[in-house]
Amino acid sequence: MRLDFNNILANQIGREHGLSRSELNGFINQYSHIIKETDQERQNGKLPFLDLGYEDISCIEKIAKKQSRYFQDFVVLGIGGSALGTRTLHNALNPPFYNLLSSQQRKNHPRLFVLDNVDPEETAALFKLINPKKTLFNVISKSGETVETLAAFLSAIKILKKALGKDYKKNLIITTDPEKGFLRKFALTEGVVSFEVPDGVEGRDSVLSPVALLPAAFTGINIKGLLQGARAMDKRCTESTPQNNPAYMVALINFLLDTRKNKNIVVLMPYTNALKELCEWFKQLWAESLGKRYSLDGKEIFTGPTPLSSIGATDQHSLIQLYNEGPNNKLIIFIEIEKFLDSVKIPKLFKNEPNVDFLQGKSFNELMKAEKKGTEISLTQNHRPNYTIRLPYISEETMGGLIYFWELTTVYAGNLYNVDVFNQPGVEAGKKAAALLLGKR
Amino acid sequence: MRLDFNNILANQIGREHGLSRSELNGFINQYSHIIKETDQERQNGKLPFLDLGYEDISCIEKIAKKQSRYFQDFVVLGIGGSALGTRTLHNALNPPFYNLLSSQQRKNHPRLFVLDNVDPEETAALFKLINPKKTLFNVISKSGETVETLAAFLSAIKILKKALGKDYKKNLIITTDPEKGFLRKFALTEGVVSFEVPDGVEGRDSVLSPVALLPAAFTGINIKGLLQGARAMDKRCTESTPQNNPAYMVALINFLLDTRKNKNIVVLMPYTNALKELCEWFKQLWAESLGKRYSLDGKEIFTGPTPLSSIGATDQHSLIQLYNEGPNNKLIIFIEIEKFLDSVKIPKLFKNEPNVDFLQGKSFNELMKAEKKGTEISLTQNHRPNYTIRLPYISEETMGGLIYFWELTTVYAGNLYNVDVFNQPGVEAGKKAAALLLGKR
Repeated sequence: MRLDFNNILANQIGREHGLSRSELNGFINQYSHIIKETDQERQNGKLPFLDLGYEDISCIEKIAKKQSRYFQDFVVLGIGGSALGTRTLHNALNPPFYNLLSSQQRKNHPRLFVLDNVDPEETAALFKLINPKKTLFNVISKSGETVETLAAFLSAIKILKKALGKDYKKNLIITTDPEKGFLRKFALTEGVVSFEVPDGVEGRDSVLSPVALLPAAFTGINIKGLLQGARAMDKRCTESTPQNNPAYMVALINFLLDTRKNKNIVVLMPYTNALKELCEWFKQLWAESLGKRYSLDGKEIFTGPTPLSSIGATDQHSLIQLYNEGPNNKLIIFIEIEKFLDSVKIPKLFKNEPNVDFLQGKSFNELMKAEKKGTEISLTQNHRPNYTIRLPYISEETMGGLIYFWELTTVYAGNLYNVDVFNQPGVEAGKKAAALLLGKR
Repeated sequence: MRLDFNNILANQIGREHGLSRSELNGFINQYSHIIKETDQERQNGKLPFLDLGYEDISCIEKIAKKQSRYFQDFVVLGIGGSALGTRTLHNALNPPFYNLLSSQQRKNHPRLFVLDNVDPEETAALFKLINPKKTLFNVISKSGETVETLAAFLSAIKILKKALGKDYKKNLIITTDPEKGFLRKFALTEGVVSFEVPDGVEGRDSVLSPVALLPAAFTGINIKGLLQGARAMDKRCTESTPQNNPAYMVALINFLLDTRKNKNIVVLMPYTNALKELCEWFKQLWAESLGKRYSLDGKEIFTGPTPLSSIGATDQHSLIQLYNEGPNNKLIIFIEIEKFLDSVKIPKLFKNEPNVDFLQGKSFNELMKAEKKGTEISLTQNHRPNYTIRLPYISEETMGGLIYFWELTTVYAGNLYNVDVFNQPGVEAGKKAAALLLGKR
């Protein structure tokens, strides 16, 4: 992973919207104490998700290896952090159109469905689509008490029992708190196979725990590689100087552009369809962690950048008009893939056609690169700050690294914004109101 | 369709963030002249997309009826406005998991793929997945010169020619400008079946033209119903008083909350997965139409609300924390479906379990309603403006109406913001730079 911060600098986009090199260097020093403080928090056991890369995952690998061939379908019942990590890994690391491939093309791994809403039409359709006897349901909830997940869980038990009778438990795996909550109790009393979401690991930081590793392993993703990538990124961030710590630099630049230059909207824009779901995961991570009413010292601050996402090149034909010409209140973060794993060559079919002459003989890969560069140039000319994260390619290792990177970046950002990144009090009121409306006492 | 604007009023969310009833009434009168002006523009032939509901679409119906059973797959090659309308209709009106259903369940209609990026991995995977002999490619570009679409088109021709020789043209339909552009010329010289994007209809307003109606008809969507819905909405907006014209009211309220109350972010939040793609279409429509550097009188204004989307109930576990507790700079627009077309009942399986007692016996439909209401209550308590668009159900008629409604709303909004909603100059610089990088002379 390489970072290119040129286009946030004043010499590229002007003093009003960019930082001068010396200003930036000053800030790098001024705030670098948060790196040590974060490290201290980690030593004190307060950031256990940063150590997930060092866990023993052989149980997950073992059960996946043993069981995956016996199931046609793997259905995740989970919402928010219990779903977004799986979606991210699946989108990035399994082949496009995975569920449409033959069983052989999937190397006998099951199809994957993530049911992360209580949409009646979608749920009913899925229950008609699958054969319960051949379906493994993985019910995931950190608390074990998430309303939407429990609703889906009850409905799934019903169709499983109808199809399998007492044997229904064989088609169920529960991932939840080690001790507390309804799902843990159920797993214990009924003897259902279960995995633990380790203490202190919140939904949005649970990708590298059984929450997302189990579904990933069942679809054939090399989960060891994910952890390896996370460890390499850990090493890179821990052992480098502040200006070479990518997580610190990204957290700092996002913070500075928001608080000094009024860029309170952050757009994550990968140039690949394979990172669409990563964007959704990032939006949750960023919004839930940083969108806070109170500072750590109890002041009312109503803070938090608003994350959005766009996909290149597609959204050049959608939101780019606004990014280029609308209010200059956004920071664009490109993700560029240096080497795609497949290619499409544009054939030479026409002669003397100015509309296609320059395209013929090129590859889609070159086209993507040029499109990204073109958008970058136009944003920079319009004084819109933007920077680029370059991945050499998409693999288990680079994805593990990228996920770890964003998680650590978010912790740093929380320190800079001076907020508690681990709570979500703003969600409770709505939950309570909904439960009351449903008659909860 | 019904609208509920209560939660944008000061008596609900306070004077700082809401409008008083009398203020709102004043504004309704003050700006109502734009309704007549828009009507005048329409009489002058400047808004032809508002009349698409009255077009003769029998050719589209005929070709779809005749040919759809002969193709296993229908592939749209188009980007931006050439893709988003089809995605919207497909997501809303075809069954969930459509491409995974058997041919019989799809009533012998082809599977549908929308290739709206030049992603090498996705494109290569699709070309491996389909059988070219049994695939219809619908190449869509208003100008006939869109770089990404031409790249995909050339690649598709190659695989078609390899599979079919001279007969390859039978598997191709072109939708483009009636006269101009590379694709029109190709269709004429090669004798390929083609449809027209009518003059004056831009990509983002082309849903009810052959651009999206043709793919819709091939998958069995009742396109007559779509136009019927559009006409009914036209009638409702044209014949009512300003305060009963839903498009005027929504445009006005969005404009007022942006310009008077600093809500420069607009969140569209349907409580159904069936409108996910509608959100993407809305984001393009809103961002490209209103995100502008210059006003109609040539002043530099850098204006335009930033549209985002969330899906209920899913994103209650993601962005709602930020919406409730972050900066009060957003307007939330709920879309609520009164009657879902299928239902899931939560069975009664446990006794004396406070976590599930209140859920058991309820339906997913009730759960969705309660979740939406809960979120609405919490946002309102936190002084966050929000309003609700209620659809009785999702059908061809209501979708046609909803699309027409948003298109007209955008025209009104353009009048209020005083910008040209039909151009996209901010996209040109990036396009040119990319073409130069690819060696275009």
